Parts: sequence; C-alpha cells; structure tokens
Amino acid sequence: MTKKNLLLFSLGLIFQLGLANAENTVVPPAPNGIELPKHYKNWRLIGVSHRTDNNSLRAILGNSVAIEAARKGNTNPWPDGTILAKLVWIDSQHPFFATATVPAALKHAEFMIKDSKKYSSTSGWGFARWLGMEQKPYGTDASFTAECYSCHGKAKDTDHVFTRPAELP
Amino acid sequence: MTKKNLLLFSLGLIFQLGLANAENTVVPPAPNGIELPKHYKNWRLIGVSHRTDNNSLRAILGNSVAIEAARKGNTNPWPDGTILAKLVWIDSQHPFFATATVPAALKHAEFMIKDSKKYSSTSGWGFARWLGMEQKPYGTDASFTAECYSCHGKAKDTDHVFTRPAELP
Repeated sequence: MTKKNLLLFSLGLIFQLGLANAENTVVPPAPNGIELPKHYKNWRLIGVSHRTDNNSLRAILGNSVAIEAARKGNTNPWPDGTILAKLVWIDSQHPFFATATVPAALKHAEFMIKDSKKYSSTSGWGFARWLGMEQKPYGTDASFTAECYSCHGKAKDTDHVFTRPAELP
Repeated sequence: MTKKNLLLFSLGLIFQLGLANAENTVVPPAPNGIELPKHYKNWRLIGVSHRTDNNSLRAILGNSVAIEAARKGNTNPWPDGTILAKLVWIDSQHPFFATATVPAALKHAEFMIKDSKKYSSTSGWGFARWLGMEQKPYGTDASFTAECYSCHGKAKDTDHVFTRPAELP
C-alpha cells in the first residue's frame, strides 16, 4: 500500500467510525437491563402535568401501541407493548409572562414498559429512568425498580399509571 | 331498475355518503379564513406550560417544519411553513396525587402559522383558535386576530412566540 493509499484508507476508516459512533445512542441501559427506548422524542402526546411538591413540569408521550390504546380508551389495563415516556423539567417562571410556568433544565426522562409476562412481578410494568441531558441511568442496581413500583402502587386502580390521557377532539 | 337493485343502489349511496362525512373534519374555518390544520394531534412535542392566572395546562406541538427548526435552534425567526399548535386544558388536582396538576376539560386548541408574505401585517404570523371538544371557531369576525397579535407583542423579541423549545437530549 502506498503512503497516499494508506492515508486515504485511514481517513475513510476514521470517517466510518465517526458515523457508527454518531448512530449509536451511547446511552447505557438502566441497572435492571432496560434499554433507552429509541426515538421517544418523536412519540405523540398523551398528557401533561405540573408537580408543585418538586416544582417540575411533565409531558407524557406514548409509543404507537400506547397512542392507539389512549385514543380508544383502552387503558385499564394498558395493552402489552405499551411504552409511556415521561419527560420531566425543572419548572421556571416565563421571562416575560409572569403567571406562566415553563420548562427550565431537563430533570429526567422515565419510562414504563408493559409486558405482562416479563414484568409479572411488578404488575406487568418495567420501569427505567435516565437523568438529565447526559442521560445517566438512575439507580445503582436493579433494586431501584422497587422504589418506582412502590410509588406507582398509589395508582393501582388505574393499572399503576398516574396519567389519564388528556381530552382531545 | 328492479326493487332489489334500487335497494342495493340506495344502501351503497348511503354507505358512500357516510364515508365521505367521516373523512370530512366538519370543523368550520376561523373567521379570518384559516382552516384547522390536519393531523395536529399527531405532531411532535415542543414544550409544555402551566398558567396560574387562568388555571390552564398547555402542550405546544409543532408540524415538521417547526420541529426541525426547534431542534436546530432556528427559532428567531421561525421559518416560513412553521405551524405551532397550543392545546389548552382547564387544570385540576390529580385524584390521588394531591401535588400534581393535570388536564381536565379541553379549553381550546390554537395555532400560529408562519407565512412572512401572507401574514406580513401581523409580523408573519396567522392566528386561529377553536374552542372545546366541539372545535367552535373563536371570534365573531376577522378582527379577532388583533387580540392575538396584541398579546403576542409581549414576545416580539422572540418572533412573537412565547414558547421556547423545551430542552431535550
């Protein structure tokens, strides 16, 4: 291989490695093995909420199974294959609309994945959360799921889901 | 035509009229002539907000031009072709999570459509709103636009748009 060919080969390899890296999400899985669902930012809207105990604004999105279920009112229980994404931001006052609360920094993105067999020990739901813009997996080991499941027990009458799909025409 | 054929023809006609009706949105245009944008419920998320002066929760969605602009940070000005949808619900306390505010009845869906030539007299934005689940056009005549444009003047430094796209990874 000539020096020129070696140079071209090396440049090509670097370019391809760069492309491969850009295509990878490079987000580590949650400690319970759940992978970050792909393309969740493109999912459709199910609802919104505002929590005043921890000053956070939320958008709840759903994958196509979830959206179909929400629009048909088929949400108690949600069908297998449902994935709900909750995007959570620290709230802040709008800079020039004093009575409006709007998102500041992203706090985390969290997910509920319905698979009644795989997650039978937690009422059919798998839980996972990634923190902030760096998308750091939440929890030090798989036991973090107990924390999620415990809180969602308050919503056991609605299939452990707090979100009720927002009214839409 | 025999009686049987007449019956079949009539049933076919009724079926086709039913289909045509189901495909129509049957939502009247706004008094300024703007038509309800199709498929807006399937648009992707740009932001959320909570207004405490009128107790309403909001989701801001965008068409594909708007989403591309939001993700590239190309929003001052927003490009021609942008449509922003704001879905507004009366807020309410979550039935079993006291510090969470969630959507109750749909108040209205409102839109900003960017066309710098067509809407040059209102800084390039066309405004329209449809009320409630019945999607009744807001305003008695085209002059309602002045009300929208006047309030959005507070946001003239951000192309008359209050919404800043929420941070996403």
